[in-house]
Amino acid sequence: MRLEILPVIGIGDVARGDDLAALIATAAPWLRDGDVLVVTSKVVSKAEGRLVDVPADGPERLTARDEVLAAETARVVATRGATRIVQTHHGFVMASAGIDASNVEKTRLVLLPEDPDASARALRAALRERYDVDVAVIVSDTMGRPWRNGLTDVALGVAGLPAIRDHRGEIDPYGNELHVTQMAVVDELAGAGELIKGKCDQVPVAVVRGYLTGGGAADGPGARMLVRDAEQDLFSLGTAEAKVAGMLAAATLDDGPGPEPADPAAVRRAIDAVAGAVASGTVFTLVTDAETRAVMTAAVPGWPATATGLILGEAPTPVSQPDLVRFGADTQRLRSALAAHGVPSLLLPPPTGGTASAALAV
Amino acid sequence: MRLEILPVIGIGDVARGDDLAALIATAAPWLRDGDVLVVTSKVVSKAEGRLVDVPADGPERLTARDEVLAAETARVVATRGATRIVQTHHGFVMASAGIDASNVEKTRLVLLPEDPDASARALRAALRERYDVDVAVIVSDTMGRPWRNGLTDVALGVAGLPAIRDHRGEIDPYGNELHVTQMAVVDELAGAGELIKGKCDQVPVAVVRGYLTGGGAADGPGARMLVRDAEQDLFSLGTAEAKVAGMLAAATLDDGPGPEPADPAAVRRAIDAVAGAVASGTVFTLVTDAETRAVMTAAVPGWPATATGLILGEAPTPVSQPDLVRFGADTQRLRSALAAHGVPSLLLPPPTGGTASAALAV
Repeated sequence: MRLEILPVIGIGDVARGDDLAALIATAAPWLRDGDVLVVTSKVVSKAEGRLVDVPADGPERLTARDEVLAAETARVVATRGATRIVQTHHGFVMASAGIDASNVEKTRLVLLPEDPDASARALRAALRERYDVDVAVIVSDTMGRPWRNGLTDVALGVAGLPAIRDHRGEIDPYGNELHVTQMAVVDELAGAGELIKGKCDQVPVAVVRGYLTGGGAADGPGARMLVRDAEQDLFSLGTAEAKVAGMLAAATLDDGPGPEPADPAAVRRAIDAVAGAVASGTVFTLVTDAETRAVMTAAVPGWPATATGLILGEAPTPVSQPDLVRFGADTQRLRSALAAHGVPSLLLPPPTGGTASAALAV
Repeated sequence: MRLEILPVIGIGDVARGDDLAALIATAAPWLRDGDVLVVTSKVVSKAEGRLVDVPADGPERLTARDEVLAAETARVVATRGATRIVQTHHGFVMASAGIDASNVEKTRLVLLPEDPDASARALRAALRERYDVDVAVIVSDTMGRPWRNGLTDVALGVAGLPAIRDHRGEIDPYGNELHVTQMAVVDELAGAGELIKGKCDQVPVAVVRGYLTGGGAADGPGARMLVRDAEQDLFSLGTAEAKVAGMLAAATLDDGPGPEPADPAAVRRAIDAVAGAVASGTVFTLVTDAETRAVMTAAVPGWPATATGLILGEAPTPVSQPDLVRFGADTQRLRSALAAHGVPSLLLPPPTGGTASAALAV
């Protein structure tokens, strides 16, 4: 077995309404059943008219570009300086929503195809029906990724090939079952195509030959299955954005306690975390003796029946009005730290008859 | 121009101390100058003895595995359930630090090569010196990535090829300068190699032919230049971990104000953000009139000369001791929200003679 990667030369410039199947079939009459076409999304977008007119320069250009970006954006993921990483309406997470200003007139921006899987299916169907060649089609684009410098080409759309090759359930020669090896082969094919497209001038289409054994495959579910939704993703927000979200969560903490008994070790870690930040003299104490706790919680107005822990807060003495306000701020510091350690809490008046200035139920 | 991707068949099992250059040269006597060898890191690790003995099953295995993972981990990036995404000592961000339990005896784990660039250079040198063939060598492994399902193979080490092909400064046919297109070609080459390795059984080495025009290149700086350090990365922490970090930052907020004048719009957004969370009756007011502000700040003990904004906080009336504590907690909510909006603040006693219970300097 061997694979070949071949450039499709001579397609030339592509304009709105151009027949991409005809351009490709004419430039590559050597196409065979089972070839995998890796088509740069830009020529798909141009043929489909996914272009926007913008001023060639100046602040008007920036404003127009920002408006186009907002329209293409489903969700902002991260920003730093001029960099905007967003999730598009397709679900792709890309800098500037994949909007491109290269290889196009200075007064135009190229948007991603509206439905790259549909674009791939349409191109595949046209080549099969009008040129009698049964290929798979990948619509590719260049994407960045966290943690690694440099970009790679990946698949935005695919027809005629499953996006993922699933090794799960296979047994290796040592008898180990393979658990998690789902390979995003269409991304590897897109990258392989880029290797030859990037080395030649103006080559928007590459052909990977030998990967499929022939035509006849279903279009398949497309590259959409490669999109991991924000809820499933451990990196759905930029680190700075998520830290801000955490600060806002601390600012708007709900009242606890939670459904699970509070972990005393977590409570102690939270108390330790704020020890250097609270006013000198403010003391928080987790009451661990069950009998003492029962007596005290009975003396706290509004003690919730579900609470499993009591933290007493003592303000520095002598207690003035500003001291109490500052002490209250310290209780909220502790509540934020408790929340960071997974412990919801509730601020209550202290047990009557003691020296504490507040109680926290956890 | 065309590329070929060829499998190297018949290498068989690799054991500690095996001569990888000899195994490859024997299995692929057809190697030519300029070929790019994509070598699965696992066979490099096995030849280099980067194996650890662990129990075959049971809780002892899990404990042993956790210890190995901790030793390979420079920094924990994200965790969810049993998933541990960490940065290795090399700088790679990978699930389980790239430790692998497949294609190895059940009583062993395979670690990543200690220095994959050095491994690539050593293999390249051995093939050149002993077998008179000048190839480039990529040491590859399978990695996940945020936002997209499925894994791809990428380069951990490389010799004889720059990791990145830099298009910056090039001018496209429309006269646009290309700004950011640095392509991680060794990752694309690694993925291309995986396409044929994954389709054949037990093929740890693939050859990409045609990408380089011949031998003689320098080893180059290796794949290390692909590592983006945490400080440079917008996704250096998992979203959940960064939110926790934000909550802890709120719990340990430093006293402001900051060096820049506070943006009144940001202050108003912060006040709005906590409006639904503070006690009924708690009111925060940004004092905007300069003259009023000057009079009031003169009446606040300890007002910092650098502060540019005054927020008055009024507690619900009538004011009892628990009310003041709760009001203090509300001031810390506001301080957290201000910090989330980039506004450092300082809690102070209120101006004398007014109805406010606290002042915040921003």
